Amino acid sequence: MTYVKDFTWKKNMKASDLVGSLGSVGFQSVELDKAARIIVKMKESNAKIFLTFTSNMVTSGLRGFFAQVIRLGMADAIVTTVGSIEEDIMKAHGEKFPIGTFQHDDTELHESGTNRVGNIFINNKSYEVFEGMMQHIFKELYKKQHRWAVSDMLKEIGLMLKDKNSILYQAAKNNVPIYCPAITDGAFGFHAFMFQQEHSDFTIDVVKDFGNILFYTNQDDRKGIIALGGSVSKHHALLACLLNGGCDYAVYMTTAHEASGSVGGATTEEAKSWGKIKDASDVCTVIGDVTITFPLAMAKALDVLAGNKLIKGV
Amino acid sequence: MTYVKDFTWKKNMKASDLVGSLGSVGFQSVELDKAARIIVKMKESNAKIFLTFTSNMVTSGLRGFFAQVIRLGMADAIVTTVGSIEEDIMKAHGEKFPIGTFQHDDTELHESGTNRVGNIFINNKSYEVFEGMMQHIFKELYKKQHRWAVSDMLKEIGLMLKDKNSILYQAAKNNVPIYCPAITDGAFGFHAFMFQQEHSDFTIDVVKDFGNILFYTNQDDRKGIIALGGSVSKHHALLACLLNGGCDYAVYMTTAHEASGSVGGATTEEAKSWGKIKDASDVCTVIGDVTITFPLAMAKALDVLAGNKLIKGV
Amino acid sequence: MTYVKDFTWKKNMKASDLVGSLGSVGFQSVELDKAARIIVKMKESNAKIFLTFTSNMVTSGLRGFFAQVIRLGMADAIVTTVGSIEEDIMKAHGEKFPIGTFQHDDTELHESGTNRVGNIFINNKSYEVFEGMMQHIFKELYKKQHRWAVSDMLKEIGLMLKDKNSILYQAAKNNVPIYCPAITDGAFGFHAFMFQQEHSDFTIDVVKDFGNILFYTNQDDRKGIIALGGSVSKHHALLACLLNGGCDYAVYMTTAHEASGSVGGATTEEAKSWGKIKDASDVCTVIGDVTITFPLAMAKALDVLAGNKLIKGV
Amino acid sequence: MTYVKDFTWKKNMKASDLVGSLGSVGFQSVELDKAARIIVKMKESNAKIFLTFTSNMVTSGLRGFFAQVIRLGMADAIVTTVGSIEEDIMKAHGEKFPIGTFQHDDTELHESGTNRVGNIFINNKSYEVFEGMMQHIFKELYKKQHRWAVSDMLKEIGLMLKDKNSILYQAAKNNVPIYCPAITDGAFGFHAFMFQQEHSDFTIDVVKDFGNILFYTNQDDRKGIIALGGSVSKHHALLACLLNGGCDYAVYMTTAHEASGSVGGATTEEAKSWGKIKDASDVCTVIGDVTITFPLAMAKALDVLAGNKLIKGV
Repeated sequence: MTYVKDFTWKKNMKASDLVGSLGSVGFQSVELDKAARIIVKMKESNAKIFLTFTSNMVTSGLRGFFAQVIRLGMADAIVTTVGSIEEDIMKAHGEKFPIGTFQHDDTELHESGTNRVGNIFINNKSYEVFEGMMQHIFKELYKKQHRWAVSDMLKEIGLMLKDKNSILYQAAKNNVPIYCPAITDGAFGFHAFMFQQEHSDFTIDVVKDFGNILFYTNQDDRKGIIALGGSVSKHHALLACLLNGGCDYAVYMTTAHEASGSVGGATTEEAKSWGKIKDASDVCTVIGDVTITFPLAMAKALDVLAGNKLIKGV
Repeated sequence: MTYVKDFTWKKNMKASDLVGSLGSVGFQSVELDKAARIIVKMKESNAKIFLTFTSNMVTSGLRGFFAQVIRLGMADAIVTTVGSIEEDIMKAHGEKFPIGTFQHDDTELHESGTNRVGNIFINNKSYEVFEGMMQHIFKELYKKQHRWAVSDMLKEIGLMLKDKNSILYQAAKNNVPIYCPAITDGAFGFHAFMFQQEHSDFTIDVVKDFGNILFYTNQDDRKGIIALGGSVSKHHALLACLLNGGCDYAVYMTTAHEASGSVGGATTEEAKSWGKIKDASDVCTVIGDVTITFPLAMAKALDVLAGNKLIKGV
Repeated sequence: MTYVKDFTWKKNMKASDLVGSLGSVGFQSVELDKAARIIVKMKESNAKIFLTFTSNMVTSGLRGFFAQVIRLGMADAIVTTVGSIEEDIMKAHGEKFPIGTFQHDDTELHESGTNRVGNIFINNKSYEVFEGMMQHIFKELYKKQHRWAVSDMLKEIGLMLKDKNSILYQAAKNNVPIYCPAITDGAFGFHAFMFQQEHSDFTIDVVKDFGNILFYTNQDDRKGIIALGGSVSKHHALLACLLNGGCDYAVYMTTAHEASGSVGGATTEEAKSWGKIKDASDVCTVIGDVTITFPLAMAKALDVLAGNKLIKGV
Repeated sequence: MTYVKDFTWKKNMKASDLVGSLGSVGFQSVELDKAARIIVKMKESNAKIFLTFTSNMVTSGLRGFFAQVIRLGMADAIVTTVGSIEEDIMKAHGEKFPIGTFQHDDTELHESGTNRVGNIFINNKSYEVFEGMMQHIFKELYKKQHRWAVSDMLKEIGLMLKDKNSILYQAAKNNVPIYCPAITDGAFGFHAFMFQQEHSDFTIDVVKDFGNILFYTNQDDRKGIIALGGSVSKHHALLACLLNGGCDYAVYMTTAHEASGSVGGATTEEAKSWGKIKDASDVCTVIGDVTITFPLAMAKALDVLAGNKLIKGV
């Protein structure tokens, strides 16, 4: 039996020690430390790790952290939405996103060509840069082949980028596939459509990519999922795992609750009914903003794994 | 200036009167009544109405209501996720979904072949029925052509169904396109992949469908959106409207909040910074479970519009 | 086994029929209809009903509805926070609260002497009116006795008001005690303190009032709770019921979730561990804004009970 | 202009550095770092700091941290609910609270005499210990005087405890008053009532304590509030500050949102309309579980202040 222990601040305490102490505090702090411990187990047991996130997290500074996580060998597959792809490419080009506030006057922002995502701004110019890059990228892709499965295409794009903080770059370099079932739901889709208008046999083959994620893992693999937020990205990774016997480990981090039946709020228990997660599995859910909870849990997990020499290049 | 008015129950009061009274109560009830009034305005101004929802709402009994809403001429385009398509097809075949509880033992459910979505259950048998239907459907589709834009394919499927409570059926009959950018994120994707294995030129063309939604509306149309929940469905409709000058009306119904920068919680104000919604527009957001708020707001809107003879077939 | 049924709008449908239909829709709509049915059972079984709410609900137009609910015999005890008392008194005097928006410029409001509670405004003038009334009220109370248990004092105040939409008035007239353990947490406390400065033996005896709520019910009573929101009001009623053997019926309506261990989000299950609610009891929780869910559930319950001639004066 | 910066993990990074990095990540992480910086400013400007929290946080391991925060001179006044007092006393006696799960079978817990608060358990035995202590404590208090203002009484109790991790003990030793307007809403109230039954002139004077908090600060003081959660505790501190010209600094940490008009979700902007917070003030709100966000923000603030020699005894 574990008991609540009074938390005490120590000068210059390490983040990993703070997270460890939170493990005996209560409520979500207990889940946070559990998340760190489950992530360690995923790696120790050599599980195939699916990391899923929505695009707002790539709008944020988690973007470079995801790239680092991939580089350190802590993610074997990525599932995300297309905004992540777009903004990773913009940032790889050097575009900077200002930090603003949630309350900024949006009519004024609109007039100044600034788009808001919570308290982060994206200038129209960044989208113009992206447009230029995509025109070039689609041409290069088309030279190689006319019909692209999504993850193959994203690997090819990753190899064209030259930014070690880029998710696509690190994923490509480290042979980590990026799955993105809703590939057209963004500016990427618009530019793909414009390109297809002049190259009618240019196709993005989402059906073929279903096979790619399906066969990326198998019944024998130990499998883990770190699902940040909900949406198609969480669902798609769980579906691939379900078809391969279910996850052995699951860490959910989200602000959503189960009450509305949404995929974001769907619990690890609910996932067991489907076989998305095995009945006997190590699971936890941390309710809270992922920009806080993911770096924290991961900081402890990485410190532990670095100590055990289980992560690459550290 | 409007003032808070004390709500009073009257015996056998009409739902639309109750909603009207809530308009002077405060907090979300004010927004709820505003939603009803904005929906009326959408119709009165002959706006093109985009109705978006996530698949859990089709798991629920809103499914037949969406079909009715389409039949009544209250939705000109649908954007949703693929679970909606799957479950609408299952239900069109007569499959029934038991109502359970949020707390059911999920290991026990798994053993009995029952999958849980919040407090609704779906039996494995319903997925088997779906599999049989899809094998037939893909064959029929393939006979006609080998490369399908998503919304064209969904219309064709709708015409094969014979259920007046079916979303796909009513959409097809009433020339209401259904857009579904993440068409492979579900059992539908799996069966499409299996079919493609034996028919390698079978393609679902998501890029072409971007053009379909893009050209479905235009700068001159008045445009309205009723976005239920977040996800790709909300984002995709807003994107199409952004590219056509922005919405004149927006009703958001969601359980998500803006704090995490998610698409589900993104406010109508934030949408203005992007031009997804016009600076001068009629907007409201109702925070709450859509299975309660949507029928209520719509019940009032429909009563008003029926009185004004503005809906079809009433 | 109950199954999901497709919801269908019918022209001019009754609110109670709409709620009944929601009972087969799913997610929170199922809980909403269950709430209506449990409230009916409370009354049918002649349970002592504790109705608890926080003061923001009295800021809203639920205030007059609470008064009606008391008048109809649907609440046997009220537990609330002191803002409710203050605003009920202001409104009994005729003060009106404007409906604004959640986004109003608060610095501007401050300069104009307007205080905001969500999207409802309260003018400073209403607080001045309140001050004048309290000076009179405390004098009258002091003439009768110098040491007042809270609920006795609130009954006395209720009898001084002349507004049938007043909670205090209806409670006093119908012998429904109002408990308010945090009686000084508001302008009421300030004015009581000012009065005590000149009448040093004037005391509000919160300890004695613990006995009042403790002995208001007993082990033999069937007991029900309708807890709107969390806070001291919910907790205090549950505590009184716990000490008397626990509730037989519980309807929780709240926007809070269990994840943080707050009293607002504490579940009916958690309450069973304490004995606040009996192990065998009829319970439900509706997650959502109470200004929508309470009128709806109650509208159905009241229609049913009026049909069964179980409510007073209908 | 600040820009989003990619977060990068460094081996053995300090918690305060991690929080500092989060300041350029986005969404709630930006607010978290801002909280740390505002807390530093409160101390640097010698503001009177009101720390408010609800009792569930004392159920958790934040209890000893609150005691440390008081000892370090980072809180000049405490406002809380009575569960905090009760559980601090139990823990000062050595009672231990097991950590369980949110999903434990509550009927089974009830049968074993275990009460659940989220994922923390409290055994009935701890309440029995508390009962014995309170019988002694009330006798000692009564010997000194018969009528106690709440904060005076709590100081006296604090001096009877001998636990450096006790909130009451550290508050008493450091002359930090503890205000608790709903002092009877718990077992404390029950035992006070039992004691009053045999000592009818024993009174807890909540009205007098209004004067205590009112005169604890003044117009000239710089004032700051750190409000954890909502409830009476947050409201009462803000009310005292309002009556003294408003806060110069405010850090809100909560899981509640503004949509329902609750005190927990009430924003710092809304507070400005009332004058609870000055129009020109440094404010932030961190949405998330306080057991994670408070230790984090405070860890950075304390590291900074220790570096500047602005906290006691470090």
